[in-house]
Formats: sequence, C-alpha cells, structure tokens
Amino acid sequence: MIVTFLSDYGPGDEYAGVVHGVIAGIAPEARIIDLGHGVPPQDVRTGARRLARALPFVPAGVHLAVVDPGVGGARRALALRVRDRWLVGPDNGLLVPAAERLGGVVQAFDVSGSPWRLEPVSATFHGRDIFGPVAGHLARGERPAEAIDPATLVRLPDLPAGKVHVVEVDGFGNLITDAALPDARRVRIGGRHVVVGRTFSDVAAGELVLYEDSAGEVALAVNGGSAAAALGVRAGDVLEFG
Amino acid sequence: MIVTFLSDYGPGDEYAGVVHGVIAGIAPEARIIDLGHGVPPQDVRTGARRLARALPFVPAGVHLAVVDPGVGGARRALALRVRDRWLVGPDNGLLVPAAERLGGVVQAFDVSGSPWRLEPVSATFHGRDIFGPVAGHLARGERPAEAIDPATLVRLPDLPAGKVHVVEVDGFGNLITDAALPDARRVRIGGRHVVVGRTFSDVAAGELVLYEDSAGEVALAVNGGSAAAALGVRAGDVLEFG
Amino acid sequence: MIVTFLSDYGPGDEYAGVVHGVIAGIAPEARIIDLGHGVPPQDVRTGARRLARALPFVPAGVHLAVVDPGVGGARRALALRVRDRWLVGPDNGLLVPAAERLGGVVQAFDVSGSPWRLEPVSATFHGRDIFGPVAGHLARGERPAEAIDPATLVRLPDLPAGKVHVVEVDGFGNLITDAALPDARRVRIGGRHVVVGRTFSDVAAGELVLYEDSAGEVALAVNGGSAAAALGVRAGDVLEFG
Repeated sequence: MIVTFLSDYGPGDEYAGVVHGVIAGIAPEARIIDLGHGVPPQDVRTGARRLARALPFVPAGVHLAVVDPGVGGARRALALRVRDRWLVGPDNGLLVPAAERLGGVVQAFDVSGSPWRLEPVSATFHGRDIFGPVAGHLARGERPAEAIDPATLVRLPDLPAGKVHVVEVDGFGNLITDAALPDARRVRIGGRHVVVGRTFSDVAAGELVLYEDSAGEVALAVNGGSAAAALGVRAGDVLEFG
Repeated sequence: MIVTFLSDYGPGDEYAGVVHGVIAGIAPEARIIDLGHGVPPQDVRTGARRLARALPFVPAGVHLAVVDPGVGGARRALALRVRDRWLVGPDNGLLVPAAERLGGVVQAFDVSGSPWRLEPVSATFHGRDIFGPVAGHLARGERPAEAIDPATLVRLPDLPAGKVHVVEVDGFGNLITDAALPDARRVRIGGRHVVVGRTFSDVAAGELVLYEDSAGEVALAVNGGSAAAALGVRAGDVLEFG
Repeated sequence: MIVTFLSDYGPGDEYAGVVHGVIAGIAPEARIIDLGHGVPPQDVRTGARRLARALPFVPAGVHLAVVDPGVGGARRALALRVRDRWLVGPDNGLLVPAAERLGGVVQAFDVSGSPWRLEPVSATFHGRDIFGPVAGHLARGERPAEAIDPATLVRLPDLPAGKVHVVEVDGFGNLITDAALPDARRVRIGGRHVVVGRTFSDVAAGELVLYEDSAGEVALAVNGGSAAAALGVRAGDVLEFG
C-alpha cells in the first residue's frame, strides 16, 4: 500500500520524518512517497492546488495532506473515501479539490476523536498525533467509524471576480496569479514597479517581473529572490494593480 | 531494520542521498527515514534538540545524525547503545540529549577507526565515509569493537543564566529563545527594534516580531524573512536586550 | 533495483514526488533514492557536477537526472548505458561527466519518442511524462530500441581560460569558483567589495567573503545569506575581478 504525504512542515525540519516514523510503526509494509513539504506555511490554497495536480499521477493509496492553520481549534479531522483512495487531512478545504478531480467524495468520516490517535494529543502537531496514525491504520486496511455528510465539508471560498489574486506560491517564492498579461511594458503592483517581461532575466537581480509561466499562468517573480517575501503575501491574497 | 538520518547537509544538495546510497549498498534491506537535513549549518544545539524531540516517536533502529563542525579534526566518531537502539554520530554533544531522553547510554563505542570505513576517508564527508557505513553495518546486526567509557562523552555546555539565548533555529530562520515574553509592546534586541506581538502578521513584511510560539517558547521572527539571516545568529548565540 | 533521482525541481514542491509516484506505478519493486532536488533552477553545470560526484558511491541502478532548460524544445531525451548502470535525462551535457567518471558511455538511446511515454506529453514536465516512465521501465529490465551514436551527445562547453567562473552553486547560494585565492585582504568582484577570509564569520552578516572551502576550492559567500541571489549569478557565469 502506498501512502503519499504533502505538508507545509518545511523540507528541512524533522516534522515530516517524525510522521514517517509514526506511520512506519503502525504499518511497516506501507511505502511512503513525499509529495513535498514546502507548501508555504498555512497556505491551504496552494496546498490544495498541489495535491489536486499530483494525485492523478500517483498510484491509489492513502493520501495524507497537512496544511492546518486551525490545528488545535474546532476544525474536524477528515478521512475521505474517493474511489479506491483515502484522503486524510484537516477539514479546511485542503482535500476537496483533489477529491473532486478524482471523481468526488464517496464517504466522509470525522476522525477527530479516532481511537487510533496517539495520546496525549498535542495542540499543535496533529500530523504526528492524529493524521499520521489515521493514515497508518487505513494503510493496514482498517476502516473508520464516524461517518459524516460529505455536504458539510468545508470548501475554500471562491476568489471574488475583478481583482488579481495570488492563487499559488511556488518553491522559489514566485506568485502565480489569476491575472491576464497586461499590454503595458511596466505596471504597478502593490505599490511597486514591475516590468512585464518574458522571463526572470529580463530584469536586474532583485527586481520584480510579471511574465507568463510554463503552464500559461501569469506569475510575478523577483529575479534571484522571493516575490512572496518581497511583497509579504501568500496564496489567496489580493494584489492591487495601478 | 529502520535507519533514521538527520543532518545539516541541506534539503536540496546531493550529500544526504549519497549517504542513503552508501547505506543501501551495505544493508539493502534497511529502510531509511529522513528526519530532516535542514539543521542550520554546524548548529549542533539545534540538531540535538530536533533529534531528542523526534526519536521517541520513531520505531527503534539505527539513528544516524551528522552535524559536525569538527569533521576532520580530533573529535571521536560514536556509536551509542541506548536500550534497543543505536545512535551514530560525532562526539560533540549531538547525540547525548536524545540518548538521555530515551533512557541513557548503555554502551559507547569509538568508531573513528572502524574497519567498516570507506577508504580513503575524506577530510570533510564523514557521513559518507564513516558514519553511513557504521550505520549500515549496525543495521545488518553487526557490532562495533572499540568500547569507551560513556562518562567521557562530550556534552553541550549549559547556557549561562541571566541572558537570552537562541536555543534553536527553525526551517524559516525563526529564532526560538529561552526568554520570557516581555510586558512591553516594543523592545530592542541586538540593537534592532522588535515588536512584541502574537504572530508574524502583527508586523509589516521585513520587520522583527517577538511572540510566543505554538510550543509555548518565545520566538523571534521576521515577517516574510529569516531572523537568523537578518541578525546573523545561530543556536547558542546570545541576544542582547535593551 | 535502485533508481536514483536528482533534479532542479526544488526540495519542497510536489514535482519530485509526482515522479516517484509515476515510477512506483510502473516498477513497484524499485527503490528510489533522491540525490537532491535543489540544483539551482536550470543550472545544468551544477547538476552535472553533483551527479558525477554522487554516482560512484551509489549502488548500480537506473540514475535519473532532470535539469532541463530546453524542455519542450528539440533537445533529445536520453538513456545511456554505462557499465551495469542506466543514466536517464536530457541531452544537454547533464549526464556526460558522470558517465565518463564511471567508465564512459557504452550505448546511447534517444527515448524522446519512447512508447513508454505518458500521453499526452506535456510541454514542461518531461520528468513525469518521459524521463520518469523511461526510468521505471528500465528498472523493470526492459530495454529501449532507438540507438544513437554516443559521439553525437551534447557536451557542456569548456569554460574559457583567464577568467573566474562560477562552477557550482551550493544549497546555501555559495558560489564555488575556479579562482585561486588572492593574496590581497580585499578584492572587488562583480563591482562589489569582498573580504578575503578563512570563513563566513570573518565578515558581518550580509557581507561578501571569498575563502577556500572544505574541498580546497575557492568560494564566494554572503554571511547569513545567498551570494547567488546577491549577485544574480548561476553556475557557468563569469565573475569580473578588480
């Protein structure tokens, strides 16, 4: 059985590895494939896009995803049945786009109070204490008990029309937007001068450039730096033009 | 047999993967779980904290850790027996906090001159040439020969009382300190103005904020950036207040 | 069978994991070892150096490498037979130094139009659609059909003598150069003042230092930052002295 794992734990810290260890203790035969732990911190929208883009190319299994700004609060912990797959993660919209791309949620379970949890459950590391153990037990072929109505799942809000939004932040801090590429050679975004170009190297190091990326989406980058850091934005934020 | 592996080799370079390859060549059946390779370079104290925090949640096995500013010098290379586990790494204090959290060192071995080494041993990559091979042979069930007195193990120095120290640097460059949260709204740290807040977004992008993190420790961050880079500090450094 | 995988996909995004998933679907028994996905974007020269440095220490298998600025263009996709190993990647010089270090190319195949490709092949993600599937089928013991003359393989251009070049960028943005260490205490590089020192901490945070690294090569770093970002350079670029 394959378990995939995507999170915002960071590619260098020990957190993702600890979750691997917890799953390996429960389901030693499971093979864990990381789908990246560099989602910008607490950026549910970027995590949801990456998960939905990845899963159609990955063998069916248990698909764990943790981007969880509401950890320790009232949000539910979920296990969703989608065809021959399980999706596991917080009830904040992270799992829904992937589930819909794969055919829709067949059954939904609230595993917040699962008997599989590691006790005592911490306030801040549910990947280790709830989601990882649930993924491990599902990988062993066990089944959760606490069914809920799929219509009650939290969804990401639609982005309002007529504005330019950051829909994703990539690993380099480039901002993927829902904008059309302007005809002008220069624009103002967030109060900063931005060159409209074809690629990074159209501007000097440290300068902002707006361009069409390899997927046909309009992206904002800093040559040699992070546009997300330079502008202090994350996915879902609105960029003011002009 | 599980082998876990934590280091400061960086999450993107080839070094950690080369050590995986060396271990796989010696112990093909061993399963290797990375516990993160993003320890700030040569930051033994942060590495020791991460290892001690991770191992209680990971199945017993061989636990390799390499944060090794003294590589190529006179420091010993260690294999420590701790209950049903082996800890492998340099004799600089990196392994001791994890060993103590797991019940203490039962037996200690100096593997600096181990016959398992890859010859010729390089001056700078003992993960590949000494520690990795030792971990691989231990994972096969072999045993080291060169016992030493556990009382001679190097320990990290205690941090002096009455100052504020950086006890850890996380993957975002946030500084975890041993400070108490001040009552003031603004303080000076390292000659810089710092806002005392609840979270990153209490300050503008690029500004410093002091806050209580999710584990109840007081941390210093730059919104959208790295406080470690901004202040040029690492774990163990002293921050001057006022 | 071991499959190793090196790329510039970034250590935090989902791309490398998607390729793992594709290979796991084709060759479930293959074990995949990452050799790092933090090659600076599109930096073929750094990727080639890392691959050549890593493979002699890794068990024989299928060795996938993707640093591919020409993706979607006319460059060929390659599978190279080198002793008991397969090297898979784009025909842009990335594989040749590793192949030569391991004894030279025995047979070369153009897999650009391989029947193993995932259809429809995207314009930008050949790791998922061509290279990953080819690696998976080779790991199953299958063989490609489209032999080409090894003499036609693209090679990296030699760096011209009499200049100082960036030969590699490491994970911290340090620049490894082909320079000799100057006798002066201070030099100018790329129009910036640089201290000639022994290590990072010889300069203040944010300042540039030139030093001899642990491998005996002369490197340029920013204390607490990235020299690559500060100077806007990548491997192969020329640094002007004076």
